[in-house]
Amino acid sequence: MSPHPGDRVRVERADVTNEGILMPSSTSDHLVIKLDGGYNVGIDRADASIDLVTSDAYDIGGTQTDIGSSAGAGADTEADKTESDITSKSAASAVAFDESLPTVSLISTGGTIASTVDYRTGAVTAQFDAEDVLRAVPDLAGRANYRGRVVRNILSENMTPAVWQDLAAAVADEIRAGADGVVVMHGTDTMQYSASALSYMLDTPVPVVFTGSQRSADRPSSDNVMNAVCAVEAATADISGVFVCMHASTADDTCALHRGTRVRKNHTSRRDAFKTVGATPIGKIEYDTETVSFHRDHAARESTELNLTSELNEDVMLLTFTPGMNIDRQTAFLTDSTPDGLIIAGTGLGHVHTEFIPTVAELVADGVVVAMTSQCIEGRVCDRVYDTGRDLLEAGVVEAGDTLPGTAKVKLMWALANHPDPTNAMRKSLAGELQHRSVPWE
Amino acid sequence: MSPHPGDRVRVERADVTNEGILMPSSTSDHLVIKLDGGYNVGIDRADASIDLVTSDAYDIGGTQTDIGSSAGAGADTEADKTESDITSKSAASAVAFDESLPTVSLISTGGTIASTVDYRTGAVTAQFDAEDVLRAVPDLAGRANYRGRVVRNILSENMTPAVWQDLAAAVADEIRAGADGVVVMHGTDTMQYSASALSYMLDTPVPVVFTGSQRSADRPSSDNVMNAVCAVEAATADISGVFVCMHASTADDTCALHRGTRVRKNHTSRRDAFKTVGATPIGKIEYDTETVSFHRDHAARESTELNLTSELNEDVMLLTFTPGMNIDRQTAFLTDSTPDGLIIAGTGLGHVHTEFIPTVAELVADGVVVAMTSQCIEGRVCDRVYDTGRDLLEAGVVEAGDTLPGTAKVKLMWALANHPDPTNAMRKSLAGELQHRSVPWE
Repeated sequence: MSPHPGDRVRVERADVTNEGILMPSSTSDHLVIKLDGGYNVGIDRADASIDLVTSDAYDIGGTQTDIGSSAGAGADTEADKTESDITSKSAASAVAFDESLPTVSLISTGGTIASTVDYRTGAVTAQFDAEDVLRAVPDLAGRANYRGRVVRNILSENMTPAVWQDLAAAVADEIRAGADGVVVMHGTDTMQYSASALSYMLDTPVPVVFTGSQRSADRPSSDNVMNAVCAVEAATADISGVFVCMHASTADDTCALHRGTRVRKNHTSRRDAFKTVGATPIGKIEYDTETVSFHRDHAARESTELNLTSELNEDVMLLTFTPGMNIDRQTAFLTDSTPDGLIIAGTGLGHVHTEFIPTVAELVADGVVVAMTSQCIEGRVCDRVYDTGRDLLEAGVVEAGDTLPGTAKVKLMWALANHPDPTNAMRKSLAGELQHRSVPWE
Repeated sequence: MSPHPGDRVRVERADVTNEGILMPSSTSDHLVIKLDGGYNVGIDRADASIDLVTSDAYDIGGTQTDIGSSAGAGADTEADKTESDITSKSAASAVAFDESLPTVSLISTGGTIASTVDYRTGAVTAQFDAEDVLRAVPDLAGRANYRGRVVRNILSENMTPAVWQDLAAAVADEIRAGADGVVVMHGTDTMQYSASALSYMLDTPVPVVFTGSQRSADRPSSDNVMNAVCAVEAATADISGVFVCMHASTADDTCALHRGTRVRKNHTSRRDAFKTVGATPIGKIEYDTETVSFHRDHAARESTELNLTSELNEDVMLLTFTPGMNIDRQTAFLTDSTPDGLIIAGTGLGHVHTEFIPTVAELVADGVVVAMTSQCIEGRVCDRVYDTGRDLLEAGVVEAGDTLPGTAKVKLMWALANHPDPTNAMRKSLAGELQHRSVPWE
């Protein structure tokens, strides 16, 4: 019998012997061993011999998958997965169902966090079940019954609106099938866009919690275990809606729960990169005490009926205005393209160069919904203060309040396809993206 | 004798009498009176009679300008000022020159802060002098001798590379004429772009300090006085380089001094909107104690010779990549445009959709310098971690480290015109815009 992830193994190479736990991120070419000191070591399988020491590391039932049959998912950047990917059904688990526990559906889209789970990649579908989940993150045991489902296996920069739609449908399926909460494993790069998309597409009676990992599982500083555990805790809490759950600080003690439409990846690499912009996060999850608390008014579990409205109009552009922008060239591009929607990330309270305002007026006259946001990131736009702003309002631009530029783009894609008055929709909060304050400054 | 700004006046309308200080932001149509409680009231001049109460509010010499002859600058959005604007020379001041004080040149480009100064608009030039400065901000008295100069009078969203060049030339002129420091009054919207531009264009032996105002002078919460005073204190300190000086917190006690290339307007309306990204500010100025302190290594006064290199290549585009971007349409636009430079604000560590990478490769092959930054704002790009990043490096994209996307755009405009190897320049710090750390995470 060959060793499985979670087994204690001894690995010998020419001049070095290491003993430790075989990690699930091992591949057919490459072993990852967690040493007793907590550090991981990577070893070329070709150069080493591996022996089982003990095989009781994880106390779960069922057949374990040989590590040689699977590969880490993190390196897969294939964008054009076929539709067969989403025909995968939640796998029945060999882990005993515990009636006293809630059921959480784990949906994987790929990214660093998904590379912890070793999918059993069959001929038609990639799928995983409770065993795979618990093998990857033993700390999840005893918190819920798990169902597993793979929608895609892509790096999140390759996300598309079509994947958002498939993901929303999969989430709705899982909720209909009885999931008490859904955890979506997602790459961090575009998590905020996907979370925004599902915020508009789904009315959900249970928590839908996105989580990911800023550091892969083979790094000592990996955040994947705590984020996964906290996401499951959030998914079983008394709340409903679409959220992002990630490290709240660089300490491994607390995750923050962010509203899907107000969250932003604010740092390229820190584990606490995700922040709720312009408000405190909606909740926090303390890892050690398994305490979930909510800081603000939140919708209780079952406070709304499940509803899926996943149509999108993809013809929305985002333009960040900066000084020196070639106004003639941008005007030609925009008026040739005549998208259905345009989000401008303007300067300050929501401004562009005066000479660009006629372009905006022309687009609006041609039926384009043009919404103004601010590249400042924090604070709300207010085009009533200065002349350029008033001219923009005159030209027909709609102010998106303090909606984040990226969220505004996703919102307009949804509103153009589903809302009777998309322009007016941009002024209002549909999913917590726009906070109400009566004045543009504190 | 008609009342002047700073005079105590009594204004009577049909049924109301107000007494207070006549504000410089009054116009020929409109009076602004600061009441004793600190609040301002605006009054239509046509409906009111105005009487002088006392005329000793500001203890400065020389002839005061009648308020009827000037208008607040805040509402002026004219973008196409003629070249005659910058032929204005620093006005000789009627305020006595104090040899014990340094000389600070105040250069106005417009914006909210400039609306405090009532220009004497003559037939050919707009100019102001020490009297006008001290009338607008009496608190500046005794800190320096002042020279005043108007380069433009525009809202900063209307800034252009041509204005940056005129501004840099004016700053160099003032330094050559003996200024011990320069304060640039500038609208806040695009201050960071102008400060970046001057950071590349100028080697300066004295401080060049941009300042502005997030709240106009007629608001009780205006930040214009403290920002102007702190900027003058910074301009007379033992430091050299190009900086931004703005409120450090919402309290009226400290301003922060930010490096021009690392600063960002991070909030649409807060007085402490400006932040140094990824570092502590280079200095702070305590308003009450007039203490200037520096937190980090900084270049001392006179540590470099004056040098002006103000050529720019304006053909640089900024693209913020977001999911759902129409790749075919953007590809057609970019390959038709073939700009000389392209800054991408990618996701996370510096990514775009895999299908967009061939476009990047084609642009690079056509001679376009394509530099990668991150829309995260904080943190540095690192395209060695994931496949999409490695593919981008393969395609010839250059990583701009932790350079802010907006700064990167200005830098590339300058580097394409002045640097022997613009691609390599994007990897290096030319003016403090790129911080050196050996690893992409802390």
